[in-house]
Amino acid sequence: MLKKLILKNRSYRRFYQTHIIKVKTLKGLVDLARISASAGNLQSLKYILSCNPKKNNLIFPYLKWAIYLKDWPGPKEGQRPSAYIIILGDTQISKNFWCDHGIAAQSILLGAVEQGLGGCMIASIDREGLRKALNIDARYEIHLVIALGKPREKVVIEKLGKDGDIKYWRDKKNI
Amino acid sequence: MLKKLILKNRSYRRFYQTHIIKVKTLKGLVDLARISASAGNLQSLKYILSCNPKKNNLIFPYLKWAIYLKDWPGPKEGQRPSAYIIILGDTQISKNFWCDHGIAAQSILLGAVEQGLGGCMIASIDREGLRKALNIDARYEIHLVIALGKPREKVVIEKLGKDGDIKYWRDKKNI
Repeated sequence: MLKKLILKNRSYRRFYQTHIIKVKTLKGLVDLARISASAGNLQSLKYILSCNPKKNNLIFPYLKWAIYLKDWPGPKEGQRPSAYIIILGDTQISKNFWCDHGIAAQSILLGAVEQGLGGCMIASIDREGLRKALNIDARYEIHLVIALGKPREKVVIEKLGKDGDIKYWRDKKNI
Repeated sequence: MLKKLILKNRSYRRFYQTHIIKVKTLKGLVDLARISASAGNLQSLKYILSCNPKKNNLIFPYLKWAIYLKDWPGPKEGQRPSAYIIILGDTQISKNFWCDHGIAAQSILLGAVEQGLGGCMIASIDREGLRKALNIDARYEIHLVIALGKPREKVVIEKLGKDGDIKYWRDKKNI
């Protein structure tokens, strides 16, 4: 059952942008992270939620989308995420976040997939740009941006070829 | 459904030590990590599995169990984990593991809980001691040890008190 959910939880990068995700949904996903393991139960992660077009537009330009798809700059207008959850680390609580943001992000994305949504953890971020755009205090480290939406693409898992190439790619049908 | 699983996935530190966990079960759990997100799909995490008393005894002395339970040195003989999954990072594949080990550990523990097992992510490790005991090559960074077993304790979630104290504790019934 969990395995099915994990298999469904691919990295989705194209979405039905007009699909609305409510702030209540995002809070529910963060709640899954809250009740997940936290080093020393310090709960040093904090979150920025975004699910309206204006705020989403502030975030989008600072994300790098798919390192192996050299000719693809990221989802075009109409296929962009409906929402984002930005995971921050509060340096006034801890200086070492261990892998708490990985634990949190996995809970959040599995929760999203369970609801028919999907997304992508993005660590390749213009952090200083994003910090300025959202006026994020220096106290907070920017760990990850989770892009969320209703997936508009098919992602399949392939066995590793003999060449050992782990890069994801798209075929003619954009799968 | 996922929320139920996450709520059940507490940090368990006392177990029915004689409960046998098969290597096949551990491989199934690592498989959940394998199909979870990996930065750039580099799959730079590697795993050491242990589910026999001899190997378990080699690992146990290098783990620090519960930072807030000052008078408790860790589970006594008979209540120790039946198995361990050690998460390593292969520095020949990547120098930056991001939060991949958090993602992997969360998948592994949720998978364990789904099967009636449970455990604890341990990052407080005598890494050099463990490296020597298991003869782990310098090429591998030791990220986490996941202790696994059939839980022999009750863990409840409490609301944060007014004093803001996030430390876990045990009552007279050892809950």
